[in-house]
Amino acid sequence: MVRARSEERRADILRASLEVIAERGYRGATLGSVAERVGLTQQGLLHYFPTKEALLVAVLEERDRWDTSGARDPEGWRLDLLESLVEYNAMRQGIVQTFSALLGESVTDGHPAREFFTERYAQVRANMARVLRLEFGERLPGGLTPERAAPLLTAVMDGLQYQWLLDPAAVDMPSAFRDFLRLLQGDDRP
Amino acid sequence: MVRARSEERRADILRASLEVIAERGYRGATLGSVAERVGLTQQGLLHYFPTKEALLVAVLEERDRWDTSGARDPEGWRLDLLESLVEYNAMRQGIVQTFSALLGESVTDGHPAREFFTERYAQVRANMARVLRLEFGERLPGGLTPERAAPLLTAVMDGLQYQWLLDPAAVDMPSAFRDFLRLLQGDDRP
Repeated sequence: MVRARSEERRADILRASLEVIAERGYRGATLGSVAERVGLTQQGLLHYFPTKEALLVAVLEERDRWDTSGARDPEGWRLDLLESLVEYNAMRQGIVQTFSALLGESVTDGHPAREFFTERYAQVRANMARVLRLEFGERLPGGLTPERAAPLLTAVMDGLQYQWLLDPAAVDMPSAFRDFLRLLQGDDRP
Repeated sequence: MVRARSEERRADILRASLEVIAERGYRGATLGSVAERVGLTQQGLLHYFPTKEALLVAVLEERDRWDTSGARDPEGWRLDLLESLVEYNAMRQGIVQTFSALLGESVTDGHPAREFFTERYAQVRANMARVLRLEFGERLPGGLTPERAAPLLTAVMDGLQYQWLLDPAAVDMPSAFRDFLRLLQGDDRP
C-alpha cells in the first residue's frame, strides 16, 4: 500500500515535470518549479529524485516507454512509426530540448546521465537494426547491413533535432527525416 | 603595436585552451586552468574572454577556420576532405567533446552560445550544399537536391559524434561516416 502510493506519487512527479518542461523548457524545469506543480516541498521532491539530472533521466525513460508503447507487436518499432515519431517530436519542443541538452551534458566526464545515454544508445541501435531488418531483410537497397545503417538512422534523428531547435524556421525536421528514409530505401524519385 | 600584442596574446590563449581541452576535456577546461597555462591571472584572462562560454566559442571558431583552411580552392570543402575531417576528429576527443557539450547547452533558452551555433549551422548547411553540388551537380544519385541533402550530411556528422563520445568501442565513427557517403553516392556494393 505504501509502495503503491509511492509509485503513484512518482508518476505524478513525472507528469508534472513533463508539463513544466513543455511550458518552460529545459532551463525552466527546476526542482523548485516541479515541486510546486505537484504540491510538494523541494525537500519532499528530493526524496523521490535526488538531483535535477536524476529527475530528467526518469522523464526521458518514461518518454521512451510511451513512444515505443504505440508499437504493439513484440518487435517494437516500425519504420513508418519512426516517421510519425519525428513528426510528433516537431510538436513538442520542450522535451526535445531537454533530451538534446542532457545528451550534450552527458558526454562530459563523470556526468550523472552518461550511463543512461550510453545504455540507451546501445538499445536504440539494436532496435533500429531490428526495424531495418524487418523492412529490408539482410541488406538495405543501398547495400548496408541493418547493423551498419542503424547508427546512421539514429545519428540523423539526433543531429536534425539540434539544427531544428536552433532554427525551426530554417529546418523542416519531419521532411528532412523523410528524405533520409527515402535515401535508405534507394528511392531515386526527385 | 598594442593592438598587435593583444592579438598575439589572444592567439596564445586559444592555443593554451586547445591544449587544456585535449588533456582534460570540457569540464577540465576552466578559466583558471587556461589562465595558469598561458601565464595570466584569471582576472587578466577575463579581459580577453569574459566567460567560459565566450572562450570556448572563440576556440570553436578558430577550429572551424583551421579545418577549412586545408581546402585551398575558393569553393572551400570537398567531400573527400570531409571524410578526412571525421577521421581526424576521431583522434581528438577533447575538442569534439567540447563542441558537442556546448552545442547541447546552446539549444536552451537564452544561452550565450546559441547565436554562434545558429549562424554556424546556416553557414555549414550552405557549405555542405556547395560541396554536394560540386560532386553531384543538381541531383544526388538518390534523387535529393544538394540543399535537401545538406542538413542530413550535417546531422549525421553531429549525431555520430554523440554516439562515439559515449561509447567509442561500439561506434566506429569514420567508418560509419563513410557508409553514409556511400549511401549518398548511391553505391550499392556491400
